[in-house]
Amino acid sequence: MSTLPSDPSTGAAVKAADRAHVFHSWSAQGLIDPLPIAGAEGSYFWDYDGNRYLDFSSQLVNTNIGHQHPKVVAAIQEQAGKLCTLAPGFAVDVRSEAARLIAERTPGDLDKIFFTNGGAEAVENAVRMARLHTGRPKVLSTYRSYHGATAAAINLTGDPRRWPSDNASAGVVHFWGPFLYRSPFHAENEAQECERALAHLEQTIAFEGPQSIAAIILETIPGTAGIMTPPPGYLAGVREICDRHGIVFILDEVMAGFGRTGHWFAADHFGVTPDLLTFAKGVNSGYVPLGGVAISAEIAATFDQRPYPGGLTYSGHPLACASAVATINAMAEERIVENAAEIGETVIGPALREIAERHPSVGEVRGLGVFWALDLVRNKETREPLVPYNAAGADNAPMAEFAAACKRGGLWPFVNMNRTHVVPACTITEAEAKEGLAALDAALTVADAHTV
Amino acid sequence: MSTLPSDPSTGAAVKAADRAHVFHSWSAQGLIDPLPIAGAEGSYFWDYDGNRYLDFSSQLVNTNIGHQHPKVVAAIQEQAGKLCTLAPGFAVDVRSEAARLIAERTPGDLDKIFFTNGGAEAVENAVRMARLHTGRPKVLSTYRSYHGATAAAINLTGDPRRWPSDNASAGVVHFWGPFLYRSPFHAENEAQECERALAHLEQTIAFEGPQSIAAIILETIPGTAGIMTPPPGYLAGVREICDRHGIVFILDEVMAGFGRTGHWFAADHFGVTPDLLTFAKGVNSGYVPLGGVAISAEIAATFDQRPYPGGLTYSGHPLACASAVATINAMAEERIVENAAEIGETVIGPALREIAERHPSVGEVRGLGVFWALDLVRNKETREPLVPYNAAGADNAPMAEFAAACKRGGLWPFVNMNRTHVVPACTITEAEAKEGLAALDAALTVADAHTV
Repeated sequence: MSTLPSDPSTGAAVKAADRAHVFHSWSAQGLIDPLPIAGAEGSYFWDYDGNRYLDFSSQLVNTNIGHQHPKVVAAIQEQAGKLCTLAPGFAVDVRSEAARLIAERTPGDLDKIFFTNGGAEAVENAVRMARLHTGRPKVLSTYRSYHGATAAAINLTGDPRRWPSDNASAGVVHFWGPFLYRSPFHAENEAQECERALAHLEQTIAFEGPQSIAAIILETIPGTAGIMTPPPGYLAGVREICDRHGIVFILDEVMAGFGRTGHWFAADHFGVTPDLLTFAKGVNSGYVPLGGVAISAEIAATFDQRPYPGGLTYSGHPLACASAVATINAMAEERIVENAAEIGETVIGPALREIAERHPSVGEVRGLGVFWALDLVRNKETREPLVPYNAAGADNAPMAEFAAACKRGGLWPFVNMNRTHVVPACTITEAEAKEGLAALDAALTVADAHTV
Repeated sequence: MSTLPSDPSTGAAVKAADRAHVFHSWSAQGLIDPLPIAGAEGSYFWDYDGNRYLDFSSQLVNTNIGHQHPKVVAAIQEQAGKLCTLAPGFAVDVRSEAARLIAERTPGDLDKIFFTNGGAEAVENAVRMARLHTGRPKVLSTYRSYHGATAAAINLTGDPRRWPSDNASAGVVHFWGPFLYRSPFHAENEAQECERALAHLEQTIAFEGPQSIAAIILETIPGTAGIMTPPPGYLAGVREICDRHGIVFILDEVMAGFGRTGHWFAADHFGVTPDLLTFAKGVNSGYVPLGGVAISAEIAATFDQRPYPGGLTYSGHPLACASAVATINAMAEERIVENAAEIGETVIGPALREIAERHPSVGEVRGLGVFWALDLVRNKETREPLVPYNAAGADNAPMAEFAAACKRGGLWPFVNMNRTHVVPACTITEAEAKEGLAALDAALTVADAHTV
């Protein structure tokens, strides 16, 4: 298992070419040292130096079906031989079938699918639909959220990546969502957190003016911001508030959708149907760029006689749609969503809670399915984060050291601010999960050394 | 050639599933009747009723290499079997190689490539780079332009698709580019049009305040807006104005790039190097969604020690990059760019000019390579467009009838407002071009009937 082919000179050449010509996302180009990757399969990927990594990040939380699933690979190869691309104005078998399979799984009457290339464009179009449907300008979103990096999507985002692209005239108002461990409302239990979070939203709407608000957009369970499962009743409460004020309710399931939480959609845990639902990532595990918006009958009807003013060259791309069809069918046939639920409940959840008891740096464990966060702290009593919000350089050293220890242990972690997320493929086996959890356990001793 | 398999019941099923679940770009969903497509090869695609169409639109002007090029199909199949997806933070052989091949072809020192999923995201990121590089807020773009449909991109756009999503606070100022046939400057020849267009831009900058302007973005040769090749000296003049005022010069080559004009980039015709160049479509003929920004050394250096605040899950997607490598190599090996230049100069251009002489509805023919527009008019003297700007319904009947006549004749046209564009694959043969031009010639008699 550990005897991988080693070819360091090819790896060095790949990296040299990368540094010469590739401009990387979210990075200071002169300070990065990208690891050249030679291959990947299932829950693992490997470099050119004989090192294999267990992928506890699912890349960017997208390879829900694991790397190189044979059925999806075969479907891409077959569709490539038949028809790679076709303009959005035509009808195509695989586009029709992908839309049908997605609509079959989305909650309620979200039965019309507008395809995009990824999550940011899905959010852009959902917001456009809401504004045109209501004729209202403003959109409310939460702090502690991520919705994408195009202009409308980044302005909705509630993390520091928004700041350099912020436009105070974008029509976005940020409010606070529920998060008991770091309660914005000084609540003492989930019921109180829920009640106070809904009251805060009601007050925000009252003072912003309900008639000016087109939409509220929430990640059903916020992802990169920290995997804060909303308390029972919160999403139903938001749904009721939206109905009362004629506000469009958008759930962003780009990260939480397609099996990650142990259901097809995270909304299924709460019995709530939004008016618009955005997706990407897990829909085809990112094997081909694809995202989209699932649209309610009422909003779709707004654009029945009136043109919808949005589009893109690759909307409903045949190769992307073929990979979605194969992914969804394989996930159903192989009970992959069920696996995510079971492994979360029986293996990952219990192990993480046990790890938290032993490590002074683990303040809270939260999550479900294959969607877990460890909130790392300097002190369990004060809950002071292990590193300050948006820390960089020396201030971020404890987290950087922790991440390096994971990698040395053969585990590729998902790290954001003072958190590490456990977000492996939905296909992960019990043995793989235990291997990764053991490596995580060992690396957390590095974080423990920074507690006080 | 005309004996295609016919399978109308499958076609009907594909269309029924489409109408049940697919929400289409830029359309009133209740008024469309999408044609189900069964297959495509080279310059042709076909439906389920035995009808074959010569594709004079290259889908949405993206299949520069034609449909189902065997080398690109094989490269996608091979890469799918090896590694479909990988996060942007790593180095990957095909991403490095795609970046190198693109950088080798872009003008000047545009040697760093930021990959996106398509053109809109490329424009979003180019504008973000320009604003952060200069610290200035405004961006100037032209009327008669299209730059994409995400929030920043649609606000830059200068056609009616912008209106429903317009944000007066987006920091965009529109000005007029050169277009002698419908001169905004009452010019009588190209030299005068150039001089007056540059003076107009200078005045606009003076009154907007040069210190407030981050960038000027132009389609090198505007595409959907009408294929208006700028007069000699115009782009060099804009370059000089940008240099004088410290304004970033962005050329949008999403449609004009990668062979369409008979050069790798349209900028090559003018000897002008922008600071940022956006691409998509032709880079891999849209076989897998891909776009990007080519970045000058100076702007890249801005993000050497300071993080670039933008990104996306599928930046530098391996499957997309592998298809770009195969596309660019095939285009070079098979002299496809040269074919576009030659067929434009020796076949399409002469034929269109001859057609224009015989048809009272053809006001002007303009273009180069496989990038041509016919400006249709009610009257050659007055140059009144055949249909009003942004016409719909009955007002647009002459163009709708013309498009229907093309399709009856086996030709799939690209129609926008009062224009039809001749934008076939760069691989088109002389015989195919002549077949399409004959069908176009016949269909124009329908337009002629609306002249006065």
